[in-house]
Amino acid sequence: MAPLSEFELIRQFFSTLSAGRSDVVEGVGDDAALVDAGSGELLAACVDTLTEDVHFPADAPAEAVGHKALAVNLSDLAAMAARPTWALLALTLPQPDSAWLAGFSAGFRALAESSGVALIGGDTTRGPRRSVSVTLLGRVAADKVLRRRGARPGDRIFVSGTVGDAAAGLRLWQAGERHRAGAVGELLARLHYPTPRLALGAALGGLASAAIDVSDGLAADLGHILAASGVGARIEIERLPLSAALRQLFPLAEARQLALTGGDDYELCFTVPPSQEVRLRQAAARCGTAVTAIGVVEEAAGLRLVDGAGQALVLPQGGYQHFPAGPQP
Amino acid sequence: MAPLSEFELIRQFFSTLSAGRSDVVEGVGDDAALVDAGSGELLAACVDTLTEDVHFPADAPAEAVGHKALAVNLSDLAAMAARPTWALLALTLPQPDSAWLAGFSAGFRALAESSGVALIGGDTTRGPRRSVSVTLLGRVAADKVLRRRGARPGDRIFVSGTVGDAAAGLRLWQAGERHRAGAVGELLARLHYPTPRLALGAALGGLASAAIDVSDGLAADLGHILAASGVGARIEIERLPLSAALRQLFPLAEARQLALTGGDDYELCFTVPPSQEVRLRQAAARCGTAVTAIGVVEEAAGLRLVDGAGQALVLPQGGYQHFPAGPQP
Repeated sequence: MAPLSEFELIRQFFSTLSAGRSDVVEGVGDDAALVDAGSGELLAACVDTLTEDVHFPADAPAEAVGHKALAVNLSDLAAMAARPTWALLALTLPQPDSAWLAGFSAGFRALAESSGVALIGGDTTRGPRRSVSVTLLGRVAADKVLRRRGARPGDRIFVSGTVGDAAAGLRLWQAGERHRAGAVGELLARLHYPTPRLALGAALGGLASAAIDVSDGLAADLGHILAASGVGARIEIERLPLSAALRQLFPLAEARQLALTGGDDYELCFTVPPSQEVRLRQAAARCGTAVTAIGVVEEAAGLRLVDGAGQALVLPQGGYQHFPAGPQP
Repeated sequence: MAPLSEFELIRQFFSTLSAGRSDVVEGVGDDAALVDAGSGELLAACVDTLTEDVHFPADAPAEAVGHKALAVNLSDLAAMAARPTWALLALTLPQPDSAWLAGFSAGFRALAESSGVALIGGDTTRGPRRSVSVTLLGRVAADKVLRRRGARPGDRIFVSGTVGDAAAGLRLWQAGERHRAGAVGELLARLHYPTPRLALGAALGGLASAAIDVSDGLAADLGHILAASGVGARIEIERLPLSAALRQLFPLAEARQLALTGGDDYELCFTVPPSQEVRLRQAAARCGTAVTAIGVVEEAAGLRLVDGAGQALVLPQGGYQHFPAGPQP
């Protein structure tokens, strides 16, 4: 979730703000922070904000906003192999709106209950536009943590589920599509009700060498793994997992571009040493989550795209942008 | 921080969202939540949002916004007797603004370092108005926790420092006052750079019967203690601790009204059994924080104001409102 260049701004001004604490195991810069709270396991913590007209359309169903505000954070913890436990909710609304709140809380509640998360705190304030900031806490054993760094040349690159669906759903929504059934309905559901890959993330702990959740787009997020690990990668675009709905409604080239650069899928992208590939496939099968090998980690920096014949392709310009409202910075 | 009736809205829609977790010791409804993270101590967590033109003037110094965004959360933990440890920052900005961010981070950093808080996570998003949401975590021994409930008839009511200063400072700021020196400067500093009472809060653990921090105004916040405890109180308005600066710049009646209904002072209001009063005064002296007995807890519900002769007074109408922008809901 980085329209304002979160990585640069936050790092520039805040990355060294440790106040001398030795219990900070992982600070700003991965999917979630890790601290040693003295319980034997690490405490994982992340925060993500969804703002109306930036991260969700103003006419998005309130239930979807409630679901998604929690889901994006669950996805961050999944990418660290952490089990979510407690959430805090900071809600900004232009005015008290019981109908919207009822829908929002229903969406939030259903996902919280199914993922075992208690809402323990909140703050409601007035502001010009709806905005939802969720802080999520969780727990993870120190030896199971997934990080962005850790990918090594030769590791296979995987992605869960299918990618590009949420970005396709956003295009459909912006074009006025509201069907709940069929391929349109499937892509809109992927936009509004993403499924955080908690079980898969937990299963990847101690098995994957690096992981991230796909929020900004597969190429961008894999790029974070590569940069953090000091490596490069080659992706075979014909291996990108595309849903039947996406292939039905979009030409193949466009579907692949959406898969590479579209955001908001909240799948997991991760790297696995060849020696762990059998265990990975068994673990994914136990979770009931499809995983697809899409490429390989290489020593040379950068992300290379190749077709089925090994021919180099150029990554389409203009990565994922969050739902735009007014001029982009 | 409750312009939107946080208490009613959040409770109506979210209070029972426990997902069956037995490790939630205190959920929504006190100054901070408490969970059992398995470390022997409880984990305390709170979140507060400051929105431009609602909680701070658009022309407030960026340093002050950074300071205050953390201070209001430190104050919540102080009111639970918790030691702050880790913070997450969700920042919404209309555009990337390095100068503002430099000031904001300097203010945030200085207070974080002096209070031993590490910034472990963040999210930066674009939105129509600056908004800062800080989640703060801390730790507290289970037998030292301060809650809002627990006040008993006969307990003495205390407040730390002086009250009314921040509300007076807001009036001065809105009237265009920008002096940094003298009485004006002192009141503006109380508005922009509140001092969370962390040492006093920690010292009150196991000693005070109930506590809250003064964010919405002394009468309103004491009212939360009384409601949570099922009791009432009598306050002697001549005992309200007023700063020399407040008395110098405002008539006595107005100063007292500000002290009762003005918000944003971030002092602690707490109740102490008579048997603990000597220990309390010793603890406060060790902290170097003035505390003033302002009244007594009584059985009959409601808050009664009396003058020095014991004559009843009427609480001024129109409690504290956050810095207004546009029509209030």
